[in-house]
Amino acid sequence: MTETKMWGGRFAKTTDKLVEDFHSSISFDQILYQQDIAGSIAHAKMLGRQGIITPAEAEQLVAGLQQIREDIDAGRVEFEVGTEDIHMNIEKILTERVGEVGKKLHTARSRNDQVALDMRLYVKLQIDEVQALLLKLEETIWQVAAENKASVMAGYTHLQKAQPITMGHHLLAYFQMFRRDFERLADCRRRADYLPLGAGALAGTTFPIDRHFVAKELGFADICANTLDAVSDRDFVVEFISAASLIMVHLSRLSEEIVLWSSNEFGYITLDDGYSTGSSIMPQKKNPDVAELVRGKSGRVFGHLMGALTMLKGLPLAYNKDLQEDKEALFDTVDTIKKSLLVFAPMLATMRINCERMHERAKGGFINATDAADYLAARGVPFREAHSIIGQLVKYAEDKGVGLEDLSLAEIQQFSSVFQADIFDYIAIDKCVAARCTPGGPALPAVETALEQAAAWLNSLKN
Amino acid sequence: MTETKMWGGRFAKTTDKLVEDFHSSISFDQILYQQDIAGSIAHAKMLGRQGIITPAEAEQLVAGLQQIREDIDAGRVEFEVGTEDIHMNIEKILTERVGEVGKKLHTARSRNDQVALDMRLYVKLQIDEVQALLLKLEETIWQVAAENKASVMAGYTHLQKAQPITMGHHLLAYFQMFRRDFERLADCRRRADYLPLGAGALAGTTFPIDRHFVAKELGFADICANTLDAVSDRDFVVEFISAASLIMVHLSRLSEEIVLWSSNEFGYITLDDGYSTGSSIMPQKKNPDVAELVRGKSGRVFGHLMGALTMLKGLPLAYNKDLQEDKEALFDTVDTIKKSLLVFAPMLATMRINCERMHERAKGGFINATDAADYLAARGVPFREAHSIIGQLVKYAEDKGVGLEDLSLAEIQQFSSVFQADIFDYIAIDKCVAARCTPGGPALPAVETALEQAAAWLNSLKN
Amino acid sequence: MTETKMWGGRFAKTTDKLVEDFHSSISFDQILYQQDIAGSIAHAKMLGRQGIITPAEAEQLVAGLQQIREDIDAGRVEFEVGTEDIHMNIEKILTERVGEVGKKLHTARSRNDQVALDMRLYVKLQIDEVQALLLKLEETIWQVAAENKASVMAGYTHLQKAQPITMGHHLLAYFQMFRRDFERLADCRRRADYLPLGAGALAGTTFPIDRHFVAKELGFADICANTLDAVSDRDFVVEFISAASLIMVHLSRLSEEIVLWSSNEFGYITLDDGYSTGSSIMPQKKNPDVAELVRGKSGRVFGHLMGALTMLKGLPLAYNKDLQEDKEALFDTVDTIKKSLLVFAPMLATMRINCERMHERAKGGFINATDAADYLAARGVPFREAHSIIGQLVKYAEDKGVGLEDLSLAEIQQFSSVFQADIFDYIAIDKCVAARCTPGGPALPAVETALEQAAAWLNSLKN
Amino acid sequence: MTETKMWGGRFAKTTDKLVEDFHSSISFDQILYQQDIAGSIAHAKMLGRQGIITPAEAEQLVAGLQQIREDIDAGRVEFEVGTEDIHMNIEKILTERVGEVGKKLHTARSRNDQVALDMRLYVKLQIDEVQALLLKLEETIWQVAAENKASVMAGYTHLQKAQPITMGHHLLAYFQMFRRDFERLADCRRRADYLPLGAGALAGTTFPIDRHFVAKELGFADICANTLDAVSDRDFVVEFISAASLIMVHLSRLSEEIVLWSSNEFGYITLDDGYSTGSSIMPQKKNPDVAELVRGKSGRVFGHLMGALTMLKGLPLAYNKDLQEDKEALFDTVDTIKKSLLVFAPMLATMRINCERMHERAKGGFINATDAADYLAARGVPFREAHSIIGQLVKYAEDKGVGLEDLSLAEIQQFSSVFQADIFDYIAIDKCVAARCTPGGPALPAVETALEQAAAWLNSLKN
Repeated sequence: MTETKMWGGRFAKTTDKLVEDFHSSISFDQILYQQDIAGSIAHAKMLGRQGIITPAEAEQLVAGLQQIREDIDAGRVEFEVGTEDIHMNIEKILTERVGEVGKKLHTARSRNDQVALDMRLYVKLQIDEVQALLLKLEETIWQVAAENKASVMAGYTHLQKAQPITMGHHLLAYFQMFRRDFERLADCRRRADYLPLGAGALAGTTFPIDRHFVAKELGFADICANTLDAVSDRDFVVEFISAASLIMVHLSRLSEEIVLWSSNEFGYITLDDGYSTGSSIMPQKKNPDVAELVRGKSGRVFGHLMGALTMLKGLPLAYNKDLQEDKEALFDTVDTIKKSLLVFAPMLATMRINCERMHERAKGGFINATDAADYLAARGVPFREAHSIIGQLVKYAEDKGVGLEDLSLAEIQQFSSVFQADIFDYIAIDKCVAARCTPGGPALPAVETALEQAAAWLNSLKN
Repeated sequence: MTETKMWGGRFAKTTDKLVEDFHSSISFDQILYQQDIAGSIAHAKMLGRQGIITPAEAEQLVAGLQQIREDIDAGRVEFEVGTEDIHMNIEKILTERVGEVGKKLHTARSRNDQVALDMRLYVKLQIDEVQALLLKLEETIWQVAAENKASVMAGYTHLQKAQPITMGHHLLAYFQMFRRDFERLADCRRRADYLPLGAGALAGTTFPIDRHFVAKELGFADICANTLDAVSDRDFVVEFISAASLIMVHLSRLSEEIVLWSSNEFGYITLDDGYSTGSSIMPQKKNPDVAELVRGKSGRVFGHLMGALTMLKGLPLAYNKDLQEDKEALFDTVDTIKKSLLVFAPMLATMRINCERMHERAKGGFINATDAADYLAARGVPFREAHSIIGQLVKYAEDKGVGLEDLSLAEIQQFSSVFQADIFDYIAIDKCVAARCTPGGPALPAVETALEQAAAWLNSLKN
Repeated sequence: MTETKMWGGRFAKTTDKLVEDFHSSISFDQILYQQDIAGSIAHAKMLGRQGIITPAEAEQLVAGLQQIREDIDAGRVEFEVGTEDIHMNIEKILTERVGEVGKKLHTARSRNDQVALDMRLYVKLQIDEVQALLLKLEETIWQVAAENKASVMAGYTHLQKAQPITMGHHLLAYFQMFRRDFERLADCRRRADYLPLGAGALAGTTFPIDRHFVAKELGFADICANTLDAVSDRDFVVEFISAASLIMVHLSRLSEEIVLWSSNEFGYITLDDGYSTGSSIMPQKKNPDVAELVRGKSGRVFGHLMGALTMLKGLPLAYNKDLQEDKEALFDTVDTIKKSLLVFAPMLATMRINCERMHERAKGGFINATDAADYLAARGVPFREAHSIIGQLVKYAEDKGVGLEDLSLAEIQQFSSVFQADIFDYIAIDKCVAARCTPGGPALPAVETALEQAAAWLNSLKN
Repeated sequence: MTETKMWGGRFAKTTDKLVEDFHSSISFDQILYQQDIAGSIAHAKMLGRQGIITPAEAEQLVAGLQQIREDIDAGRVEFEVGTEDIHMNIEKILTERVGEVGKKLHTARSRNDQVALDMRLYVKLQIDEVQALLLKLEETIWQVAAENKASVMAGYTHLQKAQPITMGHHLLAYFQMFRRDFERLADCRRRADYLPLGAGALAGTTFPIDRHFVAKELGFADICANTLDAVSDRDFVVEFISAASLIMVHLSRLSEEIVLWSSNEFGYITLDDGYSTGSSIMPQKKNPDVAELVRGKSGRVFGHLMGALTMLKGLPLAYNKDLQEDKEALFDTVDTIKKSLLVFAPMLATMRINCERMHERAKGGFINATDAADYLAARGVPFREAHSIIGQLVKYAEDKGVGLEDLSLAEIQQFSSVFQADIFDYIAIDKCVAARCTPGGPALPAVETALEQAAAWLNSLKN
């Protein structure tokens, strides 16, 4: 005889095998077992406290649930596809173990508020873990930036050499990005920090439950203010994946740069052998696979975001089965960003920065042209005119195949009599960097201030 | 003779007409003229204060810029496609008007930090305006909910009748959603509230500028901490469109319900004639076009989110021309959510809720079955067993073509002897609602508390 | 001692464990083992024929590969994460089994062309299988449509009753959609049907290979015309997921209707118990979970499409590691559409259509108003005027709370003297259907013709 | 008095101004006026032929419509927002001009089939135009490839130097991509080539229309087979945007390469001054703006695809107002790809390829390592072993800071005694290219064959 579902009372037929396989979620939602059991324990305690079940019954349920958790932790539990999901699997195992009282656990509760609870607990936990990984990455970036606070390199716009900066300055741009990511996750966590349990299927329950007790037990800041919203809301999932998408944007940009910098043409960095891979056919190859793969995985996370938004679009209240599709998108997003962050930090920490080559190459591309224009502007030539003069000077030098610093003073003065001998000092590459002491800029004191502020923020989070 | 670009010094040829049309952004970025001029005024003042230009020059620039703003406000300015963008157009007009000094405005500045500034000012302003529209909508929802705090209706899950609630309770779910949207925008605004100006092209400037003065002039909380990040960062655009996407999710869900409710089959509401439209061929049609169109527009905003993320993916630092594509996506998102919010509030305010019909229809579909199970569970039958018993009872009644309340006590007792005559009171539809006094639930006191809390939040924002 | 990679010659260090876990793809690309082995067998045969290896060596390789395939089929092979991917795993096992000659298999080949080959073979196979499932669904739709070719129901626009049609007519709209899906897949298959093998890493090979022989062996129509394109191209993946996205659009639309139709308010259909599921808390619930879940899964496939497009955006030629991200997106798309199609056909076949209720409900909502307008237009009243007259008539009847057919002739004639007694015949619901004998329309002869054409198409594919 | 809508008969109130602005589409759908008028002319002719109106009336309508078309062409028509869309605007103008008979035009037609018609006519026309632009681009690529069929350059994988190829060979990879795009559009066009007119609102019409006559008049291959599908189907829009997305993928990849190649580090190409732009602050800059902007615009088109799919998800049949959102997404997609293709061809045609530098730089990065391994494999060393030997050789040379070709025979022989003096000939860069004569590969004869095949395809399309 085929097995009957726990909701099978009104059904004349059992679920078709195809449907069972199609809608069962145990293969992926088992990842939530800790959240599910923690929620059930808090719920059982509350039922006991409120006299909805007896204290003894509550204790039996709690003990049974704790035992199941240990068994799952130890890999001693086999879940069943036919029992649909993690919630039903655990309830069923519980009832097999503790008997009739197990059938009382689901009093004043629905899977709708139960799964919403599990998801919120999961998101909160994952935010904590992702934030820890972000900090690890930030520390690495800080370290490499500090070591290279004076390593001159070409700054680029449009991938054309623009103005000289330092590698430390460059990396600190990423420090800011990941700091925003950290804070975005904190905001998301704050909004997820409401207990949905007690919302029942959609309309609360007729039992005299105590939602605030459960919230406190499970560490929530407050309860969801509306029961329909509590079971229908997946904003926190979308918001998490949105935040994750920006993490991937930032990682993809740094990845692109790592790929560029480790190319033969740039040669700015050498990845550690342990963080590179080879080719099945080309013996010379040492590929920046990690960076490329992270870059490629950005699309994956964006895709999950689109999937989650599309899934929610146009759903009437309250719970609809479509919402089950929030899970794999979220789980894979978590997995993707955690793995990406995890591997990125040591890759950065172990890469070798070829400072001499960077410095040498920074001199090309007329990178000091703005400084030459600023020289004129600081001496009264309207900037727009100075810009035009230097533009012509660049053209002249380019046709000659030399840099501005290679021209003679006489040649330069043909373009503007404002130029004096000190122009050569003004456009020397290291001087160009040093002159940019704008707050947030590349000059050493500015970078050192930025490093201090970054360190202060990191330290503030450790306490 | 063709016109020379303001950056044309080093170029031997003028820009091809095709390219000019392709990369010119003045057709859409002129929307930023107020932000651009405000930024230029603050910049000019600072240049004067710092002695980079003379105070008299600064005054000339400021006066010229103010005049241009007035002229644009009054529609007296024609922009030129060939002058590329709003920044260059204004600088050019300025120079035509104030002469040589106009060429000094761009000292210590680049379009890269200038456009980042304009975009941040714009996003901050738009957040303020969208929040105001959200509050307007919230007030309408609150009002309709308050009027219908006791209007019984069927609550649904899976679009199947689930448990009875009230229209007031139902609408308050949306109140929560839009409240989260409001707060999400506030978080986004906080992160956008950093001044990028002073970052120059990417590496600050050699001039002794005062970024904090400019930040204060323009109302920014602080300055961007890294100059490369300042010109490359579009997180605030993505975060805004993400928040907008969730607004559209919420509007699309309410739209779906409005479409359902105004269908002949549901008949819960009647839209006002002023908020419905007709058919070119079918004379009887009164279509919920506004709700459908809002629902359809959700995809549009998700698409902009996807576009912005894709655009950013894999871009090396610092500024790249790809970033120009942030604008139309953002502008159209702003336009879409503002229009959608604007039209939604009066549509809700003017719709007629057919309370009698809702109440009548709430009785169908065995909507009181959970109450019957709770009845047993409250009398000691383990819930899981109670559920099964009622499942069979439902099947029995369905085969007979009647509701649970239409069965005789004797019939009901065949399924469990626990049932007594008070079961009929327990499963009367209004009693079912009243029994759900869980915080956040549909019982009148719970809804009234929720309304009070909602009102308190609304009031807190008015002060 | 840690294991050395097969490409490890130039590396001083082994791959970091983190990297290994991160970039290894064997956990998901093992699904390609049949394609990979088929490709290797064809390659080995070709190497032998061309004298690049000896015929005896070729035979050894082929025999070894066939044996491995049998062992994998039988579940006797364990893959290793450290050996990266299915290609290296199989080559390694082969070498362990056949000895030194195994090391010759990879002559004149790269993983770049190898994985492109596997993916194309996989896509072609999956298209065949998805097309078979589409035909199964089409047959079901055809059958249900044929059975209901005269089952009158309300046709809707804007979810408002519009004009009467039949269920058969309605379902045939979906027949057209899935037919287009079938043909779209055929086009995709045609474009995937080019052999990439022989492209090597990106630039062909120095060995005298015979690509056309391999193409023929593996059933390809032709070879890829450019070797860089052969290893970089994933158009066929995107095109497949695009086609799959439209399949999901169509399924989601039918799902929405199934959800609507099985609601208490519509009541047009009753899903079979085997294709419905219950609630953990509400004993009465019988939810259209399958339809909801399919609808929800549409976002998942759209997300994969976005992921694949984003991944490809801006990649320089030729192979980049980002391309590895094509796999899970594709595999999950295949899985999702196959499962969705598989479960949909029997769900449709087993649902009960409540013809009487549909017919009864078709009468409401002034569904015959267009017919009344057509009546006037056919008698010389300009259509636009007729439309206006009937609009007023509808308003009159609505205020009275009756249908057009319930008005007296005298009442109707107040709006236009053109009306005669035959108007009542004209607006009788069954007559309204019968009158719409436009090709492709709902009148019985038109539906019967459509059924015949559909059957002819189905039959043409069986031969 | 406010204006009454053409469908306003049953409405007691006029449309609210907010709604009017919100749902009016004339601001963007006026682009369809030619399609709309062509469709109306064919419809009017058919009405006359079928005796639904008189031949004289038909002639009046046709003449009036033709006159309106001329006036719109000449910019002499002002559209009204309050008249909603292009369909109603034209009908209204027509009636104003030709009087009562104008009110007969909409007989046996609905805006639902009318707009579907306009969209299909538009898509077909745009496909023709985009195909023409693709061919223009293909011809340019062909030309540049032909001129550079022997211009040796480094081939890359993972942006690491891999194996030597030629610029001609490289560009021909793009030729293949755009050829597939061309064919994908042809498939899309074939599926769009069905006439929806005659479907009416959703259920055909009661008038004896002749759909096949109209199809022939308007150049359609056949009629849509189901009337509900005819008005609900937007597959052709999604399919077009999908095809456009792949065009953007291809353009974005080539753009990325143009950006790389024109960087100071690569220096492979120099863009023409007419196809580059400058910086507002940095006088030296010559930026590849066009390529960057095209790359950035890929996200825009992907976004429209996402928007269209999301809009369609879960819509019940038949027409819903959501479908109006197909238009701007489609129009902007058309605009984006046309402009991108238009500007790309001359940018490629005018760029200078720096062959000497490319050749010089091709020698670095141990690009000939595979050739060295092939040398051993061709002499009996199993390839996997040969790969390992060369890997060690590369490491040896790298440590020494030289290329393989710079080592002495004695040094090389330390790694394998199989090496003989001819190895130096084997790994000379030009020989490496010449040795890759695989069909589709970089050797000159292979490229010449590819050029011939490409030319044959291009020529076949001209006839």
